[in-house]
Amino acid sequence: MFKKTRFKNLLGAILIGSLAAISVPAIASNEAMLDLLKILVKKGSITAEEYELLENATKADGEKVDGNINEMKAEVAEKTKGLPKISTKGKLQISDKDGNKIRIGGRLQADTTFATGDATLGSEGGTPVTEFRRARMYLSGVFQHDWKFKFQYDFADDQGGGTANTNGIKDAYIAYKGFKPIEITLGHHKMPLSMEELTSSKYITFIERSQLVNGIVADTGGGRQYGLSAKGYFNDMLTAAAGMYAGSANEDHADNAVGFTGRLTFSPIHEKTKMVHVGLGFNHHRDNDGGLNIDGEPEIHPGSDILETETGGWEEANTFVAEAAGIYGPAAIQFEYASAELENGPVGVTDADADAWYIYGSYYLTGESRNYNWKSGSYKQTKVKNQLGQGGFGAWELALRYTSGEYDNTDGLATDSSEADILTAGLNWYPINNVRFSGNYVKVLDTSLDADTELAADLDAGATADDASYFILRGQWYF
Amino acid sequence: MFKKTRFKNLLGAILIGSLAAISVPAIASNEAMLDLLKILVKKGSITAEEYELLENATKADGEKVDGNINEMKAEVAEKTKGLPKISTKGKLQISDKDGNKIRIGGRLQADTTFATGDATLGSEGGTPVTEFRRARMYLSGVFQHDWKFKFQYDFADDQGGGTANTNGIKDAYIAYKGFKPIEITLGHHKMPLSMEELTSSKYITFIERSQLVNGIVADTGGGRQYGLSAKGYFNDMLTAAAGMYAGSANEDHADNAVGFTGRLTFSPIHEKTKMVHVGLGFNHHRDNDGGLNIDGEPEIHPGSDILETETGGWEEANTFVAEAAGIYGPAAIQFEYASAELENGPVGVTDADADAWYIYGSYYLTGESRNYNWKSGSYKQTKVKNQLGQGGFGAWELALRYTSGEYDNTDGLATDSSEADILTAGLNWYPINNVRFSGNYVKVLDTSLDADTELAADLDAGATADDASYFILRGQWYF
Amino acid sequence: MFKKTRFKNLLGAILIGSLAAISVPAIASNEAMLDLLKILVKKGSITAEEYELLENATKADGEKVDGNINEMKAEVAEKTKGLPKISTKGKLQISDKDGNKIRIGGRLQADTTFATGDATLGSEGGTPVTEFRRARMYLSGVFQHDWKFKFQYDFADDQGGGTANTNGIKDAYIAYKGFKPIEITLGHHKMPLSMEELTSSKYITFIERSQLVNGIVADTGGGRQYGLSAKGYFNDMLTAAAGMYAGSANEDHADNAVGFTGRLTFSPIHEKTKMVHVGLGFNHHRDNDGGLNIDGEPEIHPGSDILETETGGWEEANTFVAEAAGIYGPAAIQFEYASAELENGPVGVTDADADAWYIYGSYYLTGESRNYNWKSGSYKQTKVKNQLGQGGFGAWELALRYTSGEYDNTDGLATDSSEADILTAGLNWYPINNVRFSGNYVKVLDTSLDADTELAADLDAGATADDASYFILRGQWYF
Repeated sequence: MFKKTRFKNLLGAILIGSLAAISVPAIASNEAMLDLLKILVKKGSITAEEYELLENATKADGEKVDGNINEMKAEVAEKTKGLPKISTKGKLQISDKDGNKIRIGGRLQADTTFATGDATLGSEGGTPVTEFRRARMYLSGVFQHDWKFKFQYDFADDQGGGTANTNGIKDAYIAYKGFKPIEITLGHHKMPLSMEELTSSKYITFIERSQLVNGIVADTGGGRQYGLSAKGYFNDMLTAAAGMYAGSANEDHADNAVGFTGRLTFSPIHEKTKMVHVGLGFNHHRDNDGGLNIDGEPEIHPGSDILETETGGWEEANTFVAEAAGIYGPAAIQFEYASAELENGPVGVTDADADAWYIYGSYYLTGESRNYNWKSGSYKQTKVKNQLGQGGFGAWELALRYTSGEYDNTDGLATDSSEADILTAGLNWYPINNVRFSGNYVKVLDTSLDADTELAADLDAGATADDASYFILRGQWYF
Repeated sequence: MFKKTRFKNLLGAILIGSLAAISVPAIASNEAMLDLLKILVKKGSITAEEYELLENATKADGEKVDGNINEMKAEVAEKTKGLPKISTKGKLQISDKDGNKIRIGGRLQADTTFATGDATLGSEGGTPVTEFRRARMYLSGVFQHDWKFKFQYDFADDQGGGTANTNGIKDAYIAYKGFKPIEITLGHHKMPLSMEELTSSKYITFIERSQLVNGIVADTGGGRQYGLSAKGYFNDMLTAAAGMYAGSANEDHADNAVGFTGRLTFSPIHEKTKMVHVGLGFNHHRDNDGGLNIDGEPEIHPGSDILETETGGWEEANTFVAEAAGIYGPAAIQFEYASAELENGPVGVTDADADAWYIYGSYYLTGESRNYNWKSGSYKQTKVKNQLGQGGFGAWELALRYTSGEYDNTDGLATDSSEADILTAGLNWYPINNVRFSGNYVKVLDTSLDADTELAADLDAGATADDASYFILRGQWYF
Repeated sequence: MFKKTRFKNLLGAILIGSLAAISVPAIASNEAMLDLLKILVKKGSITAEEYELLENATKADGEKVDGNINEMKAEVAEKTKGLPKISTKGKLQISDKDGNKIRIGGRLQADTTFATGDATLGSEGGTPVTEFRRARMYLSGVFQHDWKFKFQYDFADDQGGGTANTNGIKDAYIAYKGFKPIEITLGHHKMPLSMEELTSSKYITFIERSQLVNGIVADTGGGRQYGLSAKGYFNDMLTAAAGMYAGSANEDHADNAVGFTGRLTFSPIHEKTKMVHVGLGFNHHRDNDGGLNIDGEPEIHPGSDILETETGGWEEANTFVAEAAGIYGPAAIQFEYASAELENGPVGVTDADADAWYIYGSYYLTGESRNYNWKSGSYKQTKVKNQLGQGGFGAWELALRYTSGEYDNTDGLATDSSEADILTAGLNWYPINNVRFSGNYVKVLDTSLDADTELAADLDAGATADDASYFILRGQWYF
């Protein structure tokens, strides 16, 4: 019987082919019947001949059950063979057992911006501006475990009087992660500089990033560039990244430029509700068209710059960024300082530099914590504790940011020094994980303008900055 | 034995973890054997000791079968766990058990338009124009049962001399349907006005909508707008919708405008082959740029307007739309009347208004019926009875439309009143549900022009409208 | 017992509904027990009454097992019902049993081009140009077995000083393959002309196609057009294709043009590592704007033409293309010759014609063979033998191409005859099937310019062509 069972298993295994995942032991068991038959024949209750027939019938019974069930197992295996894993929970992701993965997603941000007091909205003047701030789709995935790819496009033409994109291509790269923990990326992607810049616009706390990012970092080579970069993470606390680039597909960055960037971050604590982060970044940027300039940004989208340096046209910039951030339960704080030196400027202009910093605090009234990703030194999606429709009212977050920028410009003997301070108060409501509504109040606190500094288009002629403020509403979904 | 079985079930349940969907009763049953043993021991055919051993062996046999089969159940459950539902029948839709859904689709319409007689095709003159009329893709879906989202883009640049899109973003919104039967939509979407406008271009009977829609409704705030709207449906016959908006991303609508819209529809009968529908709509529109104007449209795409009011530049419009439609088997009839009053026009111009109506009948030679959706008060996909390749030749539909528009313009004391009447005959062939070929013959019957009305670019100089007609061919697929 | 089992099977079948795919034999088998009982009752070991009870209990045992297992089968069938086949191996494809199929894919090509010597890069002069050469996504599929559809868009704006696309729509068509082996295509698609043109840019050996394709074929009606075409394949060796068209959505082709095209290919041998191919093509092209011109192309993308005929503006062209290609193991050779006669040119210009040919050889150092598709007479994806990360270093391919073009232009009595010869050396590395890195060195060997031929923008004024060369790097992924 032992041998026979083994033989059957073998038969079963052959029968169901390559279904290695499903083990094939004998399923039916008729030991009791066989034992009973042995006893009955020994006692003479049945004859030896009857015993043999009954023994065979018993085994045949067992084999029949086994056969039927193995056949069914084969059917199950056939029907479920090669089925990839599909996730539709706030994204569409399909992944198979060979390490291939395909993801399809997008984001939509629709904003309405109101200007009050002396504030204006670029070419739109005092009329409220409604626009899609971002309307993106992407295809991304992994080939064979190690090769990540992504293509992302922004369909939001500029509809609000601000800076147009020359090209809506955003992330478009291939990355190799076979040399763990180092990942190498080639293509159009963000250079490693500034925590606020590196945090996706889906997850930033305020509707717009600060003047530090949209002014200094963006104007001197930060953000997305055609480039090659490498990043690594070590000891559960340290990350290092470096990149070199050759221009950008997006107009808010110089397209005929080259540069290199480096960033280090250190996070000794990064638990679910407690985090400490510090970081340092450097960027050397060379604009081959000699059109480098840093202007003060109003921290709203439809408007133009609030401060513009009169003389423009530097060739090179060296930019330093220092970062510090922390989370304690529902509270979070974030700080960055950036300083850029402009070199090889126009004839007669000896020097120019720009400095900016921001600090902000945020607090989840509903008990969530910001979601820090130590491997990238930036933030990812906040998980809402009690989503609307599942017994809760979503997550509510309050935030306050203060930014200050100083833009110096030495023209011959005189130095023009202009400064802009901006305060932003924000309220975010996340009814569910993938939807967010935000309201931001942006107040330009102080703009001390030198005589040579052009008054920006966003302020009425002769305006005192004390009377310029904006109110912005955003609806956002992504998956 | 009773207790033991219960215990086994419990064990089984623990064994296969959280597979709550699969019930775990004892599978194997050895009652007969146990009974036999009892009888045999009572009769002395076997000893009490033998009985006990055999009884245990019998139970062990049962447990072994149960164990094996439960293991297999666990395997099946593991392999099929969380598999979403996937539909590829004329669309790609993936939906899971948590109420998440993702859909990917698109449409393509390729047209060739010929002009005959005195007719011309905008900047193309008399040359036939081949173009993609619409080339759209979309991502849409549902988050957690109640949150609908959609992003749709039209890649069809204007290639035919007509009006260009400023931005190809079409539907781009988020909607909440948690307050049943009310649904609230925020973003870029169609304001509730006009049955022909609200019926998707995939399902409209003729290749182009009427001058009522493309002239009056589109020029005074209908169609897609950045807005907030609510709609509800009641008593299996009544729908009510209202919206307010602030401009459009598409150039055929004023982008610096605000307005509000309302629509009521009533459909006491809406069976599969019988339907009666009436509707009323109103729209108040304010163009902040003061550029409001209503011109007569030729009901073809590549051409420009056939009638243009000489003086333009009103600020406000009030538009009324009345709708009536019916289905009786393969026959259908549809009627709309629209009237717009323009206010706050240029200096010296006291008044302007435009009226238009259309009526059309259609008939499926192959027995299909138009497919009415009472909850939206518009039409959806016709289901072809006998698709090509499945024993049939698809669906064939004949249709005839008459439209009439009058555009008045009181300039000082004199009133310019211009009129355009257009007849369209159409033939549609739907070989399968997702493919349609159409031919339309469009004849401009009469354009009575006042002296002050500019002759439109679509007619040769000095042409009598009696000799202007167009022939259009369209191939369409969507999924 | 027999009848009962049959009855049970029937019951089971009803129980599990329409699950025809799963057979329902009796699973449990208690023949041995039933036989034993018969023997025991005959011998008087059990009474007739006991026998009857035990027999019923035995049958009930069997039925209980059958019922439980059938129930489980129904569960499996329910859970796996209608699951489409999903492939994520280098593409996303979802197909169901009704012949519907949906595929989502894309490609990304990022290039950096360097100019050396007297060479320049169009408007960019001597600065290296980094750009996305192609950034495409597509949705394609099949409706009900026979209706193929595709929509493909190229998001790569021109960022490099070369020719801009008027519209990024590439393949956008519907095709019917119900008349096997004939397939009919309607929409925007490639007209059947030239093997190098018809081979996808994902699979061409060099970074850019030859001047034969980008000059003669593209300028006289080849490439993608709005059109109707039919193709068929016969006897495992012969293909025939013909098309008529009416303009193109892409600016490198005349948009107001009509024409017709035909192509025959013959491949008596096409095994995995051995292939012989010859082909013939013809195209008649009419440019309604009379803007037809053929210029010499530099075989790089960011630059402008290297040779430009001074007088332009023909109305018609007749183009012939002859093709020959072969594969022998890792080696492959490819040759094409094209000749175009231009007719109905500007007043005073009697004649113009252009001739070009290329020949190239390629060799896989790692033993792969080019992958020929006899049904389309073009190449498809090379399968890498040992992919990186799976024990190999990918595929490595060397290639060398020589092209020669002569552009004649008879102006009155004098004939201007200009010639350009270009040599390209290439190295391709395919680490995995879907990723490729290429380096091309392009040398303009000789440009004999007549006095009336305009010197192209790509060469410095007064340059001898002997000193113009380019170096191009490309990274590519697709799925």
